[in-house]
Amino acid sequence: ADSAAMSRARVRQTQLTKPAGALGDLEELAVRLAGVFGNEKPHPRGVAVLVAAGDHGVAASGVSAYPPEVTPAMVANFLADTPAGPGGAAVNAIARTVGARVYVMDAGVNAELPDHPALIRASVRRGTRDLRLESAMTREETGTLILAGAALAKRAIQDGADLIVPGEMGIGNTTPAAALTARLLNLDAAEVTGRGTGVDDAALARKLLTVREALARTPASDPLTALAEFGGFEIAAMLGMMLQAAALRRAVVLDGFVEGSAALAGVALAPALRDFLFPAGECAEIGHAAQLSALGLKPMFKLGLRLGEGTGGVLAAPLLLSAAATLREMRTFEEAGVPGGG
Amino acid sequence: ADSAAMSRARVRQTQLTKPAGALGDLEELAVRLAGVFGNEKPHPRGVAVLVAAGDHGVAASGVSAYPPEVTPAMVANFLADTPAGPGGAAVNAIARTVGARVYVMDAGVNAELPDHPALIRASVRRGTRDLRLESAMTREETGTLILAGAALAKRAIQDGADLIVPGEMGIGNTTPAAALTARLLNLDAAEVTGRGTGVDDAALARKLLTVREALARTPASDPLTALAEFGGFEIAAMLGMMLQAAALRRAVVLDGFVEGSAALAGVALAPALRDFLFPAGECAEIGHAAQLSALGLKPMFKLGLRLGEGTGGVLAAPLLLSAAATLREMRTFEEAGVPGGG
Repeated sequence: ADSAAMSRARVRQTQLTKPAGALGDLEELAVRLAGVFGNEKPHPRGVAVLVAAGDHGVAASGVSAYPPEVTPAMVANFLADTPAGPGGAAVNAIARTVGARVYVMDAGVNAELPDHPALIRASVRRGTRDLRLESAMTREETGTLILAGAALAKRAIQDGADLIVPGEMGIGNTTPAAALTARLLNLDAAEVTGRGTGVDDAALARKLLTVREALARTPASDPLTALAEFGGFEIAAMLGMMLQAAALRRAVVLDGFVEGSAALAGVALAPALRDFLFPAGECAEIGHAAQLSALGLKPMFKLGLRLGEGTGGVLAAPLLLSAAATLREMRTFEEAGVPGGG
Repeated sequence: ADSAAMSRARVRQTQLTKPAGALGDLEELAVRLAGVFGNEKPHPRGVAVLVAAGDHGVAASGVSAYPPEVTPAMVANFLADTPAGPGGAAVNAIARTVGARVYVMDAGVNAELPDHPALIRASVRRGTRDLRLESAMTREETGTLILAGAALAKRAIQDGADLIVPGEMGIGNTTPAAALTARLLNLDAAEVTGRGTGVDDAALARKLLTVREALARTPASDPLTALAEFGGFEIAAMLGMMLQAAALRRAVVLDGFVEGSAALAGVALAPALRDFLFPAGECAEIGHAAQLSALGLKPMFKLGLRLGEGTGGVLAAPLLLSAAATLREMRTFEEAGVPGGG
């Protein structure tokens, strides 16, 4: 990030017509946006949510409350014609409300997806291998999906996006996200394995055992190898989105736990990525708080979301755009002739 | 609120294409909006922030970090022509970002305000009397300002607003808000008297003593008498906005501590008002949490805002519009052909 722009932004925060610090966390968010956009009057405009969908070999082990068939069905839902516009999922409804554009990518769904002009096809395999038994992805598959995510982020930015929200859909994907988080943060599986879509106690116990088995199967701890070992395709794609967005100096709005696991891998690869990350809310999934703490970043809200799809990130976009607007558009005490400044 | 619509909305929440409860607090917010708008597919559109400005006799006692001259200067700032559009204050910048309309009311500023076509003139006195020494407002003044606030809310609703955000500006106004809150909630002054715009320890001690003296001066505990005793004009105006918005079945988005004191008076007068109130964030001012707890309502975020002007309420508007959109626009499991529903 541009530290000179951040310094100018910090000075400007003291000059704007408000008591010092009265905008709370919004002030530091605005300063960080100044750093991302290299301007003490940052002007992010477009918002894009890039939803990558993938399946997981481990889903056959009953680690999710939903069957794997939900993944392709939700991809169809993201793309469906509805009376309100394209897409009948939560992310579509929220994106329409805040004016975000939705991109949908097949990152490796275990189904023959019907043709749709808006579907971005990046699948190299119908779902990952079972991370308990073998490496979920090859290195080559991992690299291909990272590049596909990067390409989609680049396209969204060319289409006008300044805030990039990586999003995901994949039945079973909190299991690889938990394994990846445990390995990268050196935490016990129990600290990062949660109920995902809402599994019961028996399934949670199975899921925890699965994460333990995966962690015991491989000692891989460098981020790309660990990502390949545990999966999944949509996590690799989101990693690519984040790295590309940061390289093009755009802000990345982080949704939940699965996105957080991609962010941890990204920051392990390229520590400077951190400056471009803006966590939306603290999600209900256990382990998300540990991710945010490791990233050293504070979420904007705590609404107890645990849906994924990038929903939290899209919800947070107006807060970030507003933070930037205060820094950019407010008058200074001097400009406004208001007494008491400085 | 319409409890039948709320019941239908609760059933619908279980049918939409998401794991049960995965949208966290957004789900109950959406259900409450269904109650406000009498429709299990609520469709709020316009957002209006109504900023009432007033001065306070008590400000001469040094209870604020800013001189009273800031109130008229900020009114001018709310109305100023700037390169970005009308208004150079935080609320203007945020309102432009989220598409909210700003209305500015002189509810009793202690200055001759220059003519401006957008300024709504409702002043009956240039600032309240000093609440330490006498009743800050007469009953007649109080009633006049309540009606002026109601009239402005009605106008904003006629202009298309479905979400009404009462906002305020008034140097010294956390002092009457603290007195009113302490009296209505039967709390000690120390529990609700905070640093407002950021007073130092000496000024905080003066402010606390002032609140204690005001509380000792009068035993008034019925909401209208207590409001008249402590003031201020902008609090009375916001009370009128809230009651009128609820009467016209619109949602009221609550910003911070001063707005909260008006809400407490409103709910004491008309308990059904509560169903129409949506607190934005927990603000940094001590006593706000006690207000929210008394109202039995949970805030949407905790960004540490303490600016007022309705800024927090405007920031929260996209979250409420999004909550309504999920309930309205998402497809059901059956409509989408997604397995695992119900």
